[in-house]
Parts: sequence; C-alpha cells; structure tokens
Amino acid sequence: MAMTIPPLDWDWWTRAAEYQGELIMPRGALGRLLELGRQLCAAQRTLACRAEPAAVLVLAADHGIAAEGVSAYPQEVTAQMVVNYLQGTAAVNVLARRLGMRVVVADLGMKTPVSAHHPDYVPDLAVARGTANFLHGPAMTPAEVAAALAAGRRIVAERLSDVRVLALGEMGIGNTTSAAALAAALTGQPAEAVTGRGTGLDDAGYRHKLHVVTQAVQRHGLSPATPPLSVLAAVGGLEIAGLVGAAIEAAARQMLVVLDGFISSVAGLLAVRLEPALAGYLVAGHRSREPGHAVVLEALKLRPLLELDMSLGEGSGAVLAVHLIQSAADVMTRMATFDAAGVSRRLDSAPRRERADQIRSD
Amino acid sequence: MAMTIPPLDWDWWTRAAEYQGELIMPRGALGRLLELGRQLCAAQRTLACRAEPAAVLVLAADHGIAAEGVSAYPQEVTAQMVVNYLQGTAAVNVLARRLGMRVVVADLGMKTPVSAHHPDYVPDLAVARGTANFLHGPAMTPAEVAAALAAGRRIVAERLSDVRVLALGEMGIGNTTSAAALAAALTGQPAEAVTGRGTGLDDAGYRHKLHVVTQAVQRHGLSPATPPLSVLAAVGGLEIAGLVGAAIEAAARQMLVVLDGFISSVAGLLAVRLEPALAGYLVAGHRSREPGHAVVLEALKLRPLLELDMSLGEGSGAVLAVHLIQSAADVMTRMATFDAAGVSRRLDSAPRRERADQIRSD
Repeated sequence: MAMTIPPLDWDWWTRAAEYQGELIMPRGALGRLLELGRQLCAAQRTLACRAEPAAVLVLAADHGIAAEGVSAYPQEVTAQMVVNYLQGTAAVNVLARRLGMRVVVADLGMKTPVSAHHPDYVPDLAVARGTANFLHGPAMTPAEVAAALAAGRRIVAERLSDVRVLALGEMGIGNTTSAAALAAALTGQPAEAVTGRGTGLDDAGYRHKLHVVTQAVQRHGLSPATPPLSVLAAVGGLEIAGLVGAAIEAAARQMLVVLDGFISSVAGLLAVRLEPALAGYLVAGHRSREPGHAVVLEALKLRPLLELDMSLGEGSGAVLAVHLIQSAADVMTRMATFDAAGVSRRLDSAPRRERADQIRSD
Repeated sequence: MAMTIPPLDWDWWTRAAEYQGELIMPRGALGRLLELGRQLCAAQRTLACRAEPAAVLVLAADHGIAAEGVSAYPQEVTAQMVVNYLQGTAAVNVLARRLGMRVVVADLGMKTPVSAHHPDYVPDLAVARGTANFLHGPAMTPAEVAAALAAGRRIVAERLSDVRVLALGEMGIGNTTSAAALAAALTGQPAEAVTGRGTGLDDAGYRHKLHVVTQAVQRHGLSPATPPLSVLAAVGGLEIAGLVGAAIEAAARQMLVVLDGFISSVAGLLAVRLEPALAGYLVAGHRSREPGHAVVLEALKLRPLLELDMSLGEGSGAVLAVHLIQSAADVMTRMATFDAAGVSRRLDSAPRRERADQIRSD
C-alpha cells in the first residue's frame, strides 16, 4: 500500500489554469468543469490529465443499531442489495455502466455472507458479522476499526490500482443512524442538525432515531475533541471505516475521490481528520436530501457538483458526478487553443502566442 | 413537418411514477432522475422510454447590434467558432462526443459564410447576412423571422428526426444583448435584471450594454403585451428565431428539448409563448452565470439540472445535462423491481405484486 498522501501540486494547478486561458472560449466560461480540470492536473502532475478508468467501490456491512428499529427496511436488505449489485441490476450498476465504470463490491461485515463468484466481488475481508449496538457499548473494537481500515486500503491497492477517479458508495441498513452519530460527534452539531429520515422513516420513527443519536453521543462522551478513530469505534460502521481506508489509499495513489451522500461524506470527513492532505483529492459528487449531508460538506468545505434531491446511497450520486470529471478531463486534453484554431482573441487582449508555447513545452 | 405539439400524456406520467415505486430503492430516492424518467415516459407514451439518439443543434448568426461595441470579442469570431465546431475541437464537440451525441451546426445568418463540407453542417438556410442594428430599426423583417423559424423547423425535420433528446445551442457575437432585450420585453423586467457581462465585458462595456438594452426596449415600445413574433422581429436574432422553430418542431415530434444558457432559454420562452404545450417537453440543462438566465428560467417555471457557474453557450451546459436524461432512461428500463430481485420491502408495506403485474402488463 502507498504510504503517504502527497499534497496537491499547486504548480501544476497554476499551469492548468494558464493553459485553460488558451482554450477557445471566454476565460472561465466552463466554470466548475475548469476547477475539476485543475484538480485533476494538480493531483496527477500533468496537463494531460485523465479521468479514466473510473470505478465505484461499494462497501457493505450491517449495524447492531438496526435492532433499535431505526430503519424503514429489514436488515436482510443489506445482503439482498449486494446480490443485486453483483447481478448488475441496482441503480449504481445502471448508472456506472453508462460511464464505463467498474462496480467493485466488498463485504466488510454483513450479518449474512453472500456467497457469490464475481470478478468484482470481495467476499473475504469481512471483519465481523456486523457491528455491536452502540447504545449498549462501542460499535467496534479498536482492532475491528483497524482491520476495516486496512481492508478498505487493501481493496484499493489490490483491485483498483489502475483507477484515476474513485467513487465511494455503501450499503448497510441502519447506517444513516451511525453516520448521524459520527457527524454529530465530529462537527459538534446537535442530533437534530444531522439526523434525517434515511430510507423513509415516519414521524414516530424519526423521533426515535433522533433519541438514539442523542443518547449515543452522550453515552460515549463524543465531541469534536474525541480522536477520530475513537469516534469511529464508538458509533461507526465497518463499511464506513472501510471507506475511510479506501479514501486514504486512493488519495495516496493520486486518485480523485468522489464522495456520494451522507454516509460516504462522513467517511470523507473522518479521512481528512486523519490525513489532512486528503482534502485536496476529494470531490463532493452531490448533495443528498439527508439533512446531515450539508453539515458534513460544510465541515469539509466542499460544494457539491449535483443537487438532484437524491438520497439513495450505494454510490449513485457520486457515479453521476463522475461524468462531469470525465468531461473536465476532455476539456483539458481535447479542446483547441486560440492559436491552434485561429480564433480571434478579445478585442482588448495582447497576443499570447509566446506564453502559450511556453506552457505547452513543459 | 409535424403540425401540432401533443400535450404531455399524464396517464403515462402516472404509470411511470407507479412503476418507479417498484424499482429496488426507497421510494423517490433518485430524486430528479425520476422526474426526468416520468417526463420521458409522458412524452414518448411508454414505460420503455429512450434518451438516445441525442443530439445538439448549434445555430449561428450575426447581430447588427454588435456594431455598438456590446461584446468583448470581434464579430468574425462567430464564423471562426463555426469552423471549430466543424473541426470537432470546441467545447460542445468535446462534451457531446463523450455522450455519443451528434453536433449539427447551421448558418442561420452569419455575416461571413463558412464554406465547408461536413455531413452535419447546414450552410444553405441562412436567412440574411446578420440582423440589422436594432437601435436604428427592427432587427429583422417579419418575413425574415418567418424564414428563420421555418429553417429551424426544417433542420429538425430533415436532419434530426430520429432524435429523442435535442439540446439547443447557439453562437453569435452580440447575442446576449439581443437576448437581454428579448427577456426584458417578454418578462417586463428592467434591463438591469437581465443584462450581464456576456463573454466578459468590463465595467464601462457593461454600462454601455445596459444603456443599449434599455434604449432598444423603449424605442420599440416592447412589453409583455407585445406579440412574441413582434418582439423577436424588433430585437431578436436569426439564430434565436431558428431555435424557436427547432424547439417547436422537436416537441411536435415528442422529443425532450434541453435548453442551454440565457440565449437558448429565451428562445424556449418565446417558443412556449407561441405554443404553450411545448412547456412539457422542456428541460433546463443548467443555470448559467449570466444573470438574465435565472429570470427566464423563473418565467418558464423550470429548475435547472446543473449549476456549474458556466456561461459559454454553444450548447455546452445542455449537452452536459443530457447525461442525466440518459441516466434517467436507464433507471426506467434497466433496474430490477423488488419482486423480480427478491428484495424485501419496507417493514410497513403490504405486498404489491398484483399492482406491479398490472403495470407491467400494460
């Protein structure tokens, strides 16, 4: 596994920005696509940046807290959905297929293992058969947290090392409750600000979930001062810990890491708390309807690319956003420059041929 | 050419919504992708909706108002950019190529014709060699408006009849000034609310542009009560009139019509004023930085899919959004249902096998 995360290279960021000024359009006219292009160049240290191959990693695990009735769906849905990811018929598959993205699925700790042979399924890194109910004790032991982090890193190192852009998804009935407790702890926000209806709780279910999150944060004495790994052990999930490891390994390999919704963004926030240089590699794919997501994106100082009122998870929003990153790479590498295309510059501009040549000869 | 625009079919809209409730995800979890799916189904009158082939139509023309110095770029850029569209090296080409979209380019009235042989170039429908300066008289005669509308319709009917989703783009130095005058007239908003910096005017240039727009609306006595075709003749553009025709023809053929930025959205608003049933077929691809765009989208009651701080035109934002429409079609046609996939439903739900069968047997 790669050892450290290299900081984004601001020299390449600047070169990319200068080169973008030579492309045949008014300066800055492609807005956030140009930001993504600079981020790719600064991550990859080249103007010839690439956003392919791209892939989505979906980590699945179960949550002891589901016993508190915090989800609208029964716990067996975690494994049932994994079967669908492997059959290629879930939303994430359909969205990824259009973009030529692999969907790699791993069992980080489902209650019921799924026995399936599939080239993109990792069945053998499950750390436990679900977390413990964090109202009664820590969700995970420190050893389980370490094992899940290592599993996430290993999957990226062994299965996804060719990837340039990695979207992070998850499946785990009950995991918005875990994510809400993590977000409350990491940001210091009250449970009300970070707790939502998940897959569709009714009012009574929502009030109960709110109570569970409040209780969990109090019982474990969590605050922004608590070390991130302790927060993760107290109220986290095996798939969330795995995503933290995956994000760290991906950034260490200079991949852009695309966050999906609330849960994968909480994993992103934990990863940045552990490895601050990782922040430069993150992209917020979308803003989900889950209210805690905005709080976490704010803490990450990330503005989401898409706002489509989605709240599915499984990487779906992150995958959709990968198209924008691929398009950003195309803009950097396939568009003509003013000089090459013979297009007149602004009426108030001086010729810049010399500067353009200089940039291209790097 | 198709004669009338059939209204969106609300029966198919409802069937699509019911079917979406059977897909393996919490109800509504794909947010606006599901709205797009329902719109496709209601336009095409089927659950087996398609968003391919998709194409972008870029109409180019010059503007007499450019003589007032309202653009940061010289007028010859209109034709120079058309050359680049045909060479496949402009932003719209790069973005469209990734999505497998054709880029059809037509000269609706450039000052300097581009002589090029290209299967997707329409050089022979130019109505005039640019509009007249609308500070001194009407931009176009009624006959020119009619010819440009007919040209737009004809291009769709003859070149794009197989298309399911049509993105609308434009190129014309000076055309944000024309669009601002059109928007002010159609919405009754003051020039300040609809006039922006276009391709990058400085402060003095912006103040002058504002003056030009204000003068134009006053001189021609334009208001929301003025008939749309009279507004178009007074301060419009040949490419804008062409886009109005293209939108009408596309909707008459049950295509979704994806608006790009300020100029194509003004064309969309004119088209809806002429043919109210067209509104159901419109999609706002993105919200551009040009301030008048938000005003026009508000008048159209459309919420843009993307907000990426873009302001390029040439169809670029609309093309990016086509990916979301394609993804929406995939969700409708490629995802598994709860029953087919054997995924457990919500804990509080009754079996719906009967209802699902009923929907599918239609």
